[in-house]
Amino acid sequence: MKPSDLRKEIAAASFTAPTAGCCNGFVQANMLVLPNEYAAQFEEFARANPAPIPLLETVKNGFRSKTLASGANLLNEIPSYDIIENGRRVAQVTDIEKYYQENMVFFLIGCSFSFEKKMLEEGIPLRHIEEGRNVAMYDTTIPLIPAGIFHGNMVVSMRPIRCDLIAKACVITSHFPRTHGIPVHIGKPELIGISDINSPDYGEPTAIQENELPVFWACGVTPQNVLRTIKLPFAITHSPGKMFVTDITDSEYYE
Amino acid sequence: MKPSDLRKEIAAASFTAPTAGCCNGFVQANMLVLPNEYAAQFEEFARANPAPIPLLETVKNGFRSKTLASGANLLNEIPSYDIIENGRRVAQVTDIEKYYQENMVFFLIGCSFSFEKKMLEEGIPLRHIEEGRNVAMYDTTIPLIPAGIFHGNMVVSMRPIRCDLIAKACVITSHFPRTHGIPVHIGKPELIGISDINSPDYGEPTAIQENELPVFWACGVTPQNVLRTIKLPFAITHSPGKMFVTDITDSEYYE
Repeated sequence: MKPSDLRKEIAAASFTAPTAGCCNGFVQANMLVLPNEYAAQFEEFARANPAPIPLLETVKNGFRSKTLASGANLLNEIPSYDIIENGRRVAQVTDIEKYYQENMVFFLIGCSFSFEKKMLEEGIPLRHIEEGRNVAMYDTTIPLIPAGIFHGNMVVSMRPIRCDLIAKACVITSHFPRTHGIPVHIGKPELIGISDINSPDYGEPTAIQENELPVFWACGVTPQNVLRTIKLPFAITHSPGKMFVTDITDSEYYE
Repeated sequence: MKPSDLRKEIAAASFTAPTAGCCNGFVQANMLVLPNEYAAQFEEFARANPAPIPLLETVKNGFRSKTLASGANLLNEIPSYDIIENGRRVAQVTDIEKYYQENMVFFLIGCSFSFEKKMLEEGIPLRHIEEGRNVAMYDTTIPLIPAGIFHGNMVVSMRPIRCDLIAKACVITSHFPRTHGIPVHIGKPELIGISDINSPDYGEPTAIQENELPVFWACGVTPQNVLRTIKLPFAITHSPGKMFVTDITDSEYYE
């Protein structure tokens, strides 16, 4: 299915499922919507922390994407939205038309689906995909570089990788700097504040086998964690796993 | 000092020390000399195993380098040579003029000094260099792809790398495919047949700290191990750590 066709179904609320595996080969994006008064600070925050918050497009003066999916309506072409008040989700909705205000700025942020596809193509097994599960994600003690009101710690995703394939996984993901890039940590979860690898803070646990190590990448869930930390009065995000499916191919972000 | 000046001192036997740190920025090479009857098989073996045996130059019909150091005399411009019989060293000499025979073929093989310099420049500490020690090297159970009479297991070098810098070390070394390239294994020495990480088979041990993992690269000592395995009647190698210093800059091998 073409991304534009999927987005039409999503706009009609006839598709509301997670988007993993949809429109294979096209970039999917996280979204964060903020009142304009915070936009400049958030842009500075994203620039300072490009691994967890790789900003792909910023939409001001309206609600339509220009570069990722020309003309796409960000108010209803995402399967599900979280309404955030004081850092906590207060509602989950399939469109945000009634929440839209002219002062809102839409941030579209890279997602690791792009490099996962490439890893599979290059012969690196990814167990959570084989098992049809969501990737395991964890809060960490890795501090982000603060900017304005924005501060907090990084969220990471974890994939168990065979010890003889870790180097290859690092090289592959290095070619995707706009979708989180290289691992931020390899092998010792306790060093980054993860006390129980079997209990992820988001997503689902993945078993680590004897010939593997846990490999950690910066994760696009980081902004949600930051919103909780700073208790921002109001924001909107996509619902985790239900992403904005763009018209950009993964290969366009392979550098 | 220019490599050609150092090689002059070496030829005069006034320099016989290890070459680590000499002529910083220039590629150093391992050397293996074989009777011509084995040359084609060894070239095939090297092509099949480019990580441990990256062939930089093959010299037939004479003993002078053409591409790595134009005109350099391979019989006396290396600080020390090992004479190998039936796979074992029987003598160590500062020139091999009296051993030279017209049927000999000289193989010059990449060495990890090039990527170590780049890692240091990019902010990755390397303890064996800080402590002025030889890198730790180990025999493994990683099988080489056989070719003709040549077969055996890979030798690896080990560097402890901080868990948050391992990915960067993988990416840096990926740019040096002709000097061993990316790590072949990360983190679990027992999986590749290393029973005691504190007792390397060659070089000197390096302590691994709490925030580090052992990272293993294919090593240019591999051909020596293969000679022992197959008990080749006659060969000559450079003495470990006393390399052929070439006129090629490291950056020429950065891809």
